[in-house]
Amino acid sequence: MARRQAPEATLDTVDLWWRAANYLTVGQIYLMRNPLLRHPLAPADIKPRLLGHWGTSPGLNFVYAHLNRVIVQRGIPTLYVCGPGHGGPAMVANAWLDGTYSELFPKVGQDLEGLHELMRQFSFPGGIPSHAAPETPGSINEGGELGYSLMHAYGAALDNPGLVVACVVGDGEAETGPLAASWRAHAFLSPATDGAVLPILHLNGYKIANPTLLARIPEEELVQFFRGQGYEPLLVTGGFDDEDPMRVHERMAAALDEAYGRIHDIWADARGTNGDGEADAPEGDAAPTAGEDATSAPDARPRWPMIVLRTPKGWTGPKVVDGVQVEGTFHAHQVPLAGVREDDAHRAMLEEWMRSYWPEELFDLEGRPAPGLAPLRPVGGMRMSASPHANSGMAEPLDLPVTTPFAVDTGGARTMRAGATTVFSHWLAEVMRRNPSTFRLFGPDEVASNRLQAVFDVTPRAWMEALDPADEHLGREGRVIEALSEHLMQGMLEGYLLTGRHGLLTSYEAFIHIVDSMFNQHAKWVESAHEVPWRQDIASLTYLLSSHVWRQDHNGFSHQDPGFLNVVVNKQADVVRVYLPPDANTLLATMAHCFGTTNRVNAVVAGKQLQGAWLSMDEAQAHVDAGLGVWDWAGSELGYVAGDPGASVPDAVIACAGDVPTTEAIAAAQLLRERMPRLRVRLVNVVDLMRLQDAREHPHGLSHAEFDAIFTTDRPVIFAFHGYPALIHQLTYRRMNHANIHVRGFKERGTTTTPFDMVHLNDLDRFRLALDVLERVPGLAERDGVAGLVEDWHSQRLEARAYAYEHGEDPPFVTEWEFSGR
Amino acid sequence: MARRQAPEATLDTVDLWWRAANYLTVGQIYLMRNPLLRHPLAPADIKPRLLGHWGTSPGLNFVYAHLNRVIVQRGIPTLYVCGPGHGGPAMVANAWLDGTYSELFPKVGQDLEGLHELMRQFSFPGGIPSHAAPETPGSINEGGELGYSLMHAYGAALDNPGLVVACVVGDGEAETGPLAASWRAHAFLSPATDGAVLPILHLNGYKIANPTLLARIPEEELVQFFRGQGYEPLLVTGGFDDEDPMRVHERMAAALDEAYGRIHDIWADARGTNGDGEADAPEGDAAPTAGEDATSAPDARPRWPMIVLRTPKGWTGPKVVDGVQVEGTFHAHQVPLAGVREDDAHRAMLEEWMRSYWPEELFDLEGRPAPGLAPLRPVGGMRMSASPHANSGMAEPLDLPVTTPFAVDTGGARTMRAGATTVFSHWLAEVMRRNPSTFRLFGPDEVASNRLQAVFDVTPRAWMEALDPADEHLGREGRVIEALSEHLMQGMLEGYLLTGRHGLLTSYEAFIHIVDSMFNQHAKWVESAHEVPWRQDIASLTYLLSSHVWRQDHNGFSHQDPGFLNVVVNKQADVVRVYLPPDANTLLATMAHCFGTTNRVNAVVAGKQLQGAWLSMDEAQAHVDAGLGVWDWAGSELGYVAGDPGASVPDAVIACAGDVPTTEAIAAAQLLRERMPRLRVRLVNVVDLMRLQDAREHPHGLSHAEFDAIFTTDRPVIFAFHGYPALIHQLTYRRMNHANIHVRGFKERGTTTTPFDMVHLNDLDRFRLALDVLERVPGLAERDGVAGLVEDWHSQRLEARAYAYEHGEDPPFVTEWEFSGR
Repeated sequence: MARRQAPEATLDTVDLWWRAANYLTVGQIYLMRNPLLRHPLAPADIKPRLLGHWGTSPGLNFVYAHLNRVIVQRGIPTLYVCGPGHGGPAMVANAWLDGTYSELFPKVGQDLEGLHELMRQFSFPGGIPSHAAPETPGSINEGGELGYSLMHAYGAALDNPGLVVACVVGDGEAETGPLAASWRAHAFLSPATDGAVLPILHLNGYKIANPTLLARIPEEELVQFFRGQGYEPLLVTGGFDDEDPMRVHERMAAALDEAYGRIHDIWADARGTNGDGEADAPEGDAAPTAGEDATSAPDARPRWPMIVLRTPKGWTGPKVVDGVQVEGTFHAHQVPLAGVREDDAHRAMLEEWMRSYWPEELFDLEGRPAPGLAPLRPVGGMRMSASPHANSGMAEPLDLPVTTPFAVDTGGARTMRAGATTVFSHWLAEVMRRNPSTFRLFGPDEVASNRLQAVFDVTPRAWMEALDPADEHLGREGRVIEALSEHLMQGMLEGYLLTGRHGLLTSYEAFIHIVDSMFNQHAKWVESAHEVPWRQDIASLTYLLSSHVWRQDHNGFSHQDPGFLNVVVNKQADVVRVYLPPDANTLLATMAHCFGTTNRVNAVVAGKQLQGAWLSMDEAQAHVDAGLGVWDWAGSELGYVAGDPGASVPDAVIACAGDVPTTEAIAAAQLLRERMPRLRVRLVNVVDLMRLQDAREHPHGLSHAEFDAIFTTDRPVIFAFHGYPALIHQLTYRRMNHANIHVRGFKERGTTTTPFDMVHLNDLDRFRLALDVLERVPGLAERDGVAGLVEDWHSQRLEARAYAYEHGEDPPFVTEWEFSGR
Repeated sequence: MARRQAPEATLDTVDLWWRAANYLTVGQIYLMRNPLLRHPLAPADIKPRLLGHWGTSPGLNFVYAHLNRVIVQRGIPTLYVCGPGHGGPAMVANAWLDGTYSELFPKVGQDLEGLHELMRQFSFPGGIPSHAAPETPGSINEGGELGYSLMHAYGAALDNPGLVVACVVGDGEAETGPLAASWRAHAFLSPATDGAVLPILHLNGYKIANPTLLARIPEEELVQFFRGQGYEPLLVTGGFDDEDPMRVHERMAAALDEAYGRIHDIWADARGTNGDGEADAPEGDAAPTAGEDATSAPDARPRWPMIVLRTPKGWTGPKVVDGVQVEGTFHAHQVPLAGVREDDAHRAMLEEWMRSYWPEELFDLEGRPAPGLAPLRPVGGMRMSASPHANSGMAEPLDLPVTTPFAVDTGGARTMRAGATTVFSHWLAEVMRRNPSTFRLFGPDEVASNRLQAVFDVTPRAWMEALDPADEHLGREGRVIEALSEHLMQGMLEGYLLTGRHGLLTSYEAFIHIVDSMFNQHAKWVESAHEVPWRQDIASLTYLLSSHVWRQDHNGFSHQDPGFLNVVVNKQADVVRVYLPPDANTLLATMAHCFGTTNRVNAVVAGKQLQGAWLSMDEAQAHVDAGLGVWDWAGSELGYVAGDPGASVPDAVIACAGDVPTTEAIAAAQLLRERMPRLRVRLVNVVDLMRLQDAREHPHGLSHAEFDAIFTTDRPVIFAFHGYPALIHQLTYRRMNHANIHVRGFKERGTTTTPFDMVHLNDLDRFRLALDVLERVPGLAERDGVAGLVEDWHSQRLEARAYAYEHGEDPPFVTEWEFSGR
């Protein structure tokens, strides 16, 4: 490679930057010391364990350098989302060249010592990971589990009308389902009021050990694919057969100029401006973008540009090692020269490789980036590594309405009925009204099904594809986003949250398992970000899981799975919360709380069906504040002292968590109250599941004394639980009374049947709970009359099933049950 | 709709079949009695709860009827995979018309009583679900959780060279990630030796409450999309604006004839035959298919046909109800007439709707399908509902080689080292050699990374896209399938297993969470299929999870997650197994066992790194047979009687499960043996995790007596566990000694660091385990010399970390540790 001068933001400067970033990338993978090769590489300069990935990095550096040129020349803020795995050293290299890295990590200065630390820390114990991660300035996308970059990019672009989110998609990543579902996310992106996403598919041809699909299909097919996804692809291919990189720079610069130009035109067209993002968006249908593209696009959705960049994997690295072709093959994926510590020849190749970037041109004598790089370095927050969208946390808290005007007015009775999500939806609509550009609702075609339609009084769903006169609640500027992909909804919400905004994801309970792994990765992000001093707070990710396991009346077994809660509680206690509000007002209080929290994942499970509105709003608020509590009005514990459960000791405790289990528990307590009036039963409802854990295990956990006061130390506890019973044992096994806790919950028995038959099938019904109490209170079963009672309740269970199997619905003695409180 | 005669397999017969299936579909949704409308509909004829989905059904029936014509006329066996959700009533209706339903469910005969039961049972307590499900004849795809139909179809087509798998993809489903990743699965489908998949995208325009994306994009874009996915799309649109269905039948028949004709040509071309599937496939590159398509396809992958069928949602149903347009909108999704029981006008509309199909033509006086339908009914197993591929279970057991020749010959020592997956891979290669058309290995680009390369000595990866001279282990007839999509790999394997074959999925442990929900649904399928009398055994789904939580040296936190095991144990005990083989020979014995099982999901976790080969093959086999056992050679329990752990009582038990925890546990026991020679420590290794559960909870569970003999009733048990500690508590909380079980495992602390630092970070290292013993054996901490030992071990932990942070690798006193057994 020839030496070049680079005084301006020209392509020579771009090449200089690229070489500097490549040099720093290789240095991070290999070197513990001697960062500027001031002396010939010695074995002791080399890390003992070479744990990094070269293959994708030169492409990432190439894109970074080119985007810098565009930003400097056009002044358009750009966020860089790095999709390929293991791109960490590239992103860190560029952040260091930007100056951001040294600002955020002062021990990694822009000097010799900083360079040394920069290289040493990478993939090193106590150092930084090999992926773009929370530790990486400017990043909102972890490069470990692949597939989420493009959905993160689309989430980031929402409500950021002046922002371009450049998203490098790896060709490996492009094979994943979530990524494949993301291409059409532009259906929800308003050219008038949102930013732009510029996907850059990087075809370097190989994954870990395989070629990639998109790199091996005919180019004509590739172009059809992206046109078929609604984009206008711009193809840049180069670097093969020893092509001079300057030629590739020219093509890439032209493609980026074309792409940014089109984005400018699309914005201008949609906004009736010159694209400065200042003017108000026109209402209604915007004409499709002008330009060369003859293919029609629907009413409002322009044909956005995207770039296909095809370069060799491991470009500029060793071409052949030990007789094996490395550059341009999967052999370049990780560490092309594996034996550099022991093998003098490999070490010499490494040195030659690093010197091919001309380090003397790249850094000055003090180890600072060469002055020639300066013209390519945007200023302040315009640097992609310093983008306030990525690094600055939550823009502002939500303006939350008080809940009382939206609450069910129970009038002090316990006999009203309400649909929890319906009640919540009116408050949610007001949240969306008050926060017109910082809150979004996401759902996989389930917003209406989960009874949240009231939000459509405030805003429709976003939809840039064709409209039909029969459409309901669809519009160009809608703030609800729905596609039938839990992945896409989760990913766009993550991108929205990670760039400082707020939102809610609603899903059927069973199908949130689809994003278990995305939840895991987001929770890990939040866990890790907590350790990064400059990362700011972000709004919590809140799930409203409705249409839950107990009310899948017309769906059956495939829709019956409460196991997401088990996945959630595995994560660090600081980060995860699980709420099971038992009624409408409690759901309101729970959501108002969740929307005010930061840096957490809140899983809230609440049904959409009509059911008991047990608590007034004040009671509900107090209950959520406490997280759990004794409902003395539902029990039969004479002598119970409000606020001091330890002052009396009941014969048995019926605990419950979840709306359907709570109903069954209350009904069971009533059965016992009516038929065994002298039995002292305490009813405990748990809304914040983590209260059950030991205070040493979870910040919301109860102390042992608090727990014992409520659950006693020796009385039978029948626990009616929404999910799998083992979860309650997992949370309570350290409690003194654990051996007496008998949990009823979902035991993987399900089908299409009536609501009561479902709880019956899983031994969670009121009769079974009441029987559990009779069987477990010592000596009770032998008392006079109890045997008859047992027989009676057993026969009612059988009767209920027989009735349902004959009539197709639950019998009146179940459905017409009404609470008669104390 | 006009009445028509239909004596032959003409389009009139197709229409007759379609009307019959539509009639039966509506009847299932609404009627409890009066199935043939022999008297005017009365309220009591109507189900009290209307729980079904009409919208998708007429399209499914339309496709079914048309496929019947092709099967009858061409004699090509065809499997029908029903992708859209809630297609149950349609699939059941067709199976009943086929006669299959009555053969498999004699109480649902082809007579009046059978018709009555057919309608009554649907979405009714004690009845059948509203989706295509295990209860549905001919089905291999549950219609509950959407997204997996096309991958199931591709899995079913593998190694079935004469089979066409017609896969109806819903346009809702098409928005999911897994479905989006499936289109390119033809890259793995050999036209020479596999069958064909014929995707039929059913654009009915709407999901639950939203339009679908693919129905609203310009048609030109849709065509580009499918060409870009490598297909030649055939478009059939009809049924709008009161179009005569006969015109649509004509277009659909032409499209299907075209599609089957192309498939015939593709097969013939690839096989050098007339497409009868008899001739041997030619080796090497097959020429691209001939035909009208001018677009080039790569060497071996033909341009397969696919059909886009655009018809109104709820076609032939009520057009307008209460002033709202229903047909052709999302209002047709579920039950178009909601008030038929109470509302006379609605009930009259229902009757009119049902009579519009002319039931007198469809059924005879005894309630049998009209004779005119006979020409459209294929014979025996050619009926799609009776396809042996779907209904007949496992074709044959695997021919499994004995393990001994592949085992590590430990020579009785405990000091050898081996990579477990490497050892296993040679045996696996032999399995693949012996079962050349009934076993497949699937991996998300991780077969080589998980060290299973030995299989490539037997067979390459399947790859129909372009080949490059530098490619390794890629070929047209390969039996390993790799794409970077856990979804696609899981789904194709499911399709392969559900059609009677065998396979293995290998994945990084953390990323198997990506398919949590697919695992759930497959486990639910197996659970439900168990209750269906005519469903045969299928081979177990086995996961080999390698590159696990403890050895993510260069990947870090995002790759560290052992929580899949928690998801697995939530499913029914009959179905799930978890194995944590501690070394190479134990992995061999475990996999040989798993490959011989049926109707289960086996999750096997085993590392790929070099580590202790503790057991000889005979010992390993005995250990796997027992599921867990005392390793007296690793403990220090004088007086221990082999085979009778209850005969002595140790001071403490160190239990372990998982390869890395086992190494640390053995090292801890050795530290104690060396430094506290009189302490009696028992080492227990658990390979079959479900042994820990109560025998009443799991078929592999130990009785309490067995458990107590091994784990004692009162001695401290330090349990070194591979996964999250709570899982061990969840499994053992019923055990007498549970309060003394102290679990060390992954506590969500991770980063890029050395192997020893990872166990240290999570308090699972040998020093910490030994300290746990010292702290928990009563009175031990106060004994002479113990305080010094405690200090020593604490300082070694600190030293190890300091060394790693300075040198980048673990210190010699950790890495050079060697077992010195008794």
